[in-house]
Order: sequence, then C-alpha cells, then structure tokens
Amino acid sequence: MPSRFAARGSDREIETGARFMPEFDENGLISCIVTNADDGEVLMLAHMNEDALVRTIETGDAWFWSRTHQQLWRKGESSGNTLTIQEMRVDCDQDVILIKVRISGGGVACHTGARSCFYRRMPVKRPADNSIALTFVEDLKR
Amino acid sequence: MPSRFAARGSDREIETGARFMPEFDENGLISCIVTNADDGEVLMLAHMNEDALVRTIETGDAWFWSRTHQQLWRKGESSGNTLTIQEMRVDCDQDVILIKVRISGGGVACHTGARSCFYRRMPVKRPADNSIALTFVEDLKR
Repeated sequence: MPSRFAARGSDREIETGARFMPEFDENGLISCIVTNADDGEVLMLAHMNEDALVRTIETGDAWFWSRTHQQLWRKGESSGNTLTIQEMRVDCDQDVILIKVRISGGGVACHTGARSCFYRRMPVKRPADNSIALTFVEDLKR
Repeated sequence: MPSRFAARGSDREIETGARFMPEFDENGLISCIVTNADDGEVLMLAHMNEDALVRTIETGDAWFWSRTHQQLWRKGESSGNTLTIQEMRVDCDQDVILIKVRISGGGVACHTGARSCFYRRMPVKRPADNSIALTFVEDLKR
C-alpha cells in the first residue's frame, strides 16, 4: 500500500529538510510523546500507525493505534478525555512525534485515573536489582 | 539470561504497585523520554536495553542502546553533552521510562546541534499528504 506521506529521503533531507517524511517501524508504528500544552508535563507515550497519524493531522485530535486491542483509537472516545492538539512536532530522525495537547473532560490522560501515566518515581544511584521500590507522586483516583 | 529486575506481575501489581518490574519489548528494549529538568522541555526519545537501564540507575547518568550502532552508549561520551539525571519515573504499564536531566557541556541533546531533537513543527488541521511542510522552531548550529 503506498504511503500517504513523502518517501524517506537522504539523512540530510530527513534531518535538516522542511519536508515531513515519517518513518514507521517494522510493525508500521511511530512513537508519539504527549505533553500538557499548559505546563509541559509529560502525560503518556503512545503509538500511531499511518491511519492514526493521518487522522490526527487532519482532525487536530489525537488518534493512536492500540497495540493491546489491535485497533484504531481516538484517545478519550470512551472516557471523554480527548486530546486536542495545540502543537505538533517531529524529531531529527522523523521517527518520533511530539504533541502538546489540552485534555477535555476530567483532565486525566492515564486509564488509571492519574493525570499523567508517569505517577511513580524511581530511585537513582543505588543498586539496580529486583527490589527497586517506586514512590507515588500522584494518587490514583480509581 | 535472568533479568536483574523483578519479574512482571499481574496488571494490578504493575499499575498500582510500588515494585519496579519493567517490560522490555521483543528487541529487549524499553523507550525512554528525556526532558530538561529545568524547564520541562522534551529533548529526545531513546531506547535502553537491560544493561543501559542498570547503568543509568546505578550511575545517575543516562545510558542508552544505540539501535544504529548496536552498542551500549553513554549519552554525551563523545560530545561532552552527558545527561545527569535529576529525576526518574516509570509509566503505568512499566514499559516507558521518563528521565528529567541536566545537560553538561554545550547544553544540546541532539546530534544535529539543536538543544532538543524536536526542532521542527508540523501543521495540523490540513490534508495529510506527501507535501506537508515543516517549520523550524530552533536553528541547527552545525
């Protein structure tokens, strides 16, 4: 199936050019980092296939590919927490997307009820073994 | 090879527990989002294998697995732009790491010379076709 997007060019075209030529991985997916447009907090990492990326660009709402359910997924369709894109960026290699969003509904991005999926802190500068304890920085509401 | 980390538990243990039990993908990698600790700007997305994750936790410097060079890589080893971790988090599914860092050296995270890898903005609410034009939000210094 031909892509809707431009074919990949040289490294120079990809990194320093002004043409969007995204790379999808061996599963047809591209990673997408989601941040809160108001304060920059990282909310989640999700994946888009080509259809999800097309719908996201065209509608301004975040669409993803659910690897768990193997289906296209408009984020917030069931929870009401849709993500409206304020700004969209691509990285140097054009294999990662960054979207800065406003969250509708309850204002939470994570299915656990947390605002951000990153609600637990890890310790650093200690032995990395099987007893690493996490600290909650946000309470889960469910 | 047995993992250095705890084995994966139930969904409940993974999502609401206080034990670190990371999931590596079919290539043995876990995604890692890097932000600037001072202002929260998203700098890059990279990948860690188990060795890189162990070294990152134990040293407090960011180590990654370079998929291009197929080798362990202390970020900034050649450029001097090492990443010192101020805070480390894990997401709900424990398959994504977030690190908030201070950059040594020239203060740039991207190999292009840009501070962040996300130096180009994409348009939204327009047709998604092969002529999408990117806008530079940061000049490349090289």
